Amino acid sequence: MSRIAVDAMGGDFAPGEIVKGAVQASLEFPIELILVGDRQAIQRELDRYGKKGRLSVSHAAEVIGNDESPVSAVKQKKNASINVAVSLVKDKEADAVVSAGNTGALMTAGLFGLGRIPGVERPAIATIFPTPAGPVLLLDMGANVDCKPKHLLQFGEMGAQYAEHVMHIKNPRVGLLNIGEEKEKGNQLAVESWPLLKSARINFVGNVESKEILSGKVDVVVADGFVGNLILKFGESISAFIVTLLKEELMKNLLSKFAALLLLPALNRIKKKVDYDEFGGAPMLGINGIVYKAHGRAKAKAVKNAIRVAHEAVKADLVGCISRIEKK
Amino acid sequence: MSRIAVDAMGGDFAPGEIVKGAVQASLEFPIELILVGDRQAIQRELDRYGKKGRLSVSHAAEVIGNDESPVSAVKQKKNASINVAVSLVKDKEADAVVSAGNTGALMTAGLFGLGRIPGVERPAIATIFPTPAGPVLLLDMGANVDCKPKHLLQFGEMGAQYAEHVMHIKNPRVGLLNIGEEKEKGNQLAVESWPLLKSARINFVGNVESKEILSGKVDVVVADGFVGNLILKFGESISAFIVTLLKEELMKNLLSKFAALLLLPALNRIKKKVDYDEFGGAPMLGINGIVYKAHGRAKAKAVKNAIRVAHEAVKADLVGCISRIEKK
Repeated sequence: MSRIAVDAMGGDFAPGEIVKGAVQASLEFPIELILVGDRQAIQRELDRYGKKGRLSVSHAAEVIGNDESPVSAVKQKKNASINVAVSLVKDKEADAVVSAGNTGALMTAGLFGLGRIPGVERPAIATIFPTPAGPVLLLDMGANVDCKPKHLLQFGEMGAQYAEHVMHIKNPRVGLLNIGEEKEKGNQLAVESWPLLKSARINFVGNVESKEILSGKVDVVVADGFVGNLILKFGESISAFIVTLLKEELMKNLLSKFAALLLLPALNRIKKKVDYDEFGGAPMLGINGIVYKAHGRAKAKAVKNAIRVAHEAVKADLVGCISRIEKK
Repeated sequence: MSRIAVDAMGGDFAPGEIVKGAVQASLEFPIELILVGDRQAIQRELDRYGKKGRLSVSHAAEVIGNDESPVSAVKQKKNASINVAVSLVKDKEADAVVSAGNTGALMTAGLFGLGRIPGVERPAIATIFPTPAGPVLLLDMGANVDCKPKHLLQFGEMGAQYAEHVMHIKNPRVGLLNIGEEKEKGNQLAVESWPLLKSARINFVGNVESKEILSGKVDVVVADGFVGNLILKFGESISAFIVTLLKEELMKNLLSKFAALLLLPALNRIKKKVDYDEFGGAPMLGINGIVYKAHGRAKAKAVKNAIRVAHEAVKADLVGCISRIEKK
């Protein structure tokens, strides 16, 4: 049974949606949850629910806001919920942490509290892109804005381990995000990373262009954190943009309103196919412990799913899998 | 009256769609067109149309394919349509070139034949993103995969000139594509480019996140060519992806087919709003002459619009505008 520490105070809808998602997860999965944060606030939320699984509360008096500078906040607020949640993993009282709070603070708390897996130079944040061909793992999502080829190599190796052992994809195909297929294409970083990835013990299928991210050509996409973050955020915004356009047009007259009504089931099926919430959380790979970042706007469903994947990662011994690459 | 050389042999639908677009443009705008390529093939296409504007043909015996290496192809195939079209500008027989052919070859032919505008270190390819808030200019789209801060500064200056004088946007707002709003955010290139752009004589509004590209917050978005190309191609693929999903869902049953029929006008309005073809061509800014790249998949409408914007650039004296920045 995995024990997961949940930062109940992080995210735009904390603690309400976090606790709600945790309660749901506690009922659905064979896990034990430790809700970390203001005991009274958490208890008030817990009281709303009758049936609950194994849940306990660990008090944390402080919260790190989204606008706070990660390093100084983590250092100064020793009793912040993120710090307390990470310390539960450090003290072996929990097997994983899930937080929807300040991303930089979570990474910093993870690094300070748990350290890096020996051999890993730079931990990376990996996000899942839902595509009709199946989920695609993209890393790094912004932890490392200036990378060296060695870092991209390790992102590829860690991503492959994650795809295989946590996402259960056999022999996952790893691609390097680039502006062309040929190995001599791209910027200096891409050109120098290609041969390292090629000679790694992974199923490296070469460069992948951005238009192919959604095509199902690869399972893992490797990029530096600057590019990865730009692509992720752009993708989210375009989807939202098209939905907005569609809604505006559909509401223009009675006839199109009627059509919209008929289309609701189809639109909902599309929404489900491209729904980030189904995948819940982004793992911070390379930290010596299991740390998941849920979206700042995560509601109960996304929180529940982040807890689910953290549980999967515990079962798969994610940290052990990554440690073993670095010893090969 | 502007005289525009059109590479009739470049692009997936050449020469048919290129000639068709040119004929349409010749009827709509006060211009003179020189169609460059295989005389017989062009004449055969021209013969399909009764009413035509001022059009002539300049023979070019060779064509550079999309898969050819730009530099060696441009050097070896002196009589390639791209080379001949550029030489018409060099010899003052035309005021601008439009080609839907090999992008690298067009840039190379432009640089070899016309050179750079004095002071410009790196010419850039600028593309227009259609957004509901109006067109947004994004540069560089892939000509320069490794950039220095000075290059991004010049992209901002050239983009501002283009937005003001060719797109007729007053005091255009220029933003630096970045992963956060604060000036200390981003990779080293972004951090070092910020102060240069800030002190330039442009309306620099700071960093712009990728999710804001479509929001109308800025008129010009500056990025290096690696990032710009990834973003452009990803945007195109997501739009196509959502349209495909929608079509699949709409065709699933009779009821949704009926709804789709009712929705056609709305879908067409959306399509028009985000239609790249309305904007036609991407200028290569910094070349000492007016050079436009049309999309490789350009059909008549996109070709016509590329010719239209080239005509606008001639009227605006684009090269003069950019030359004057560099002398400030």
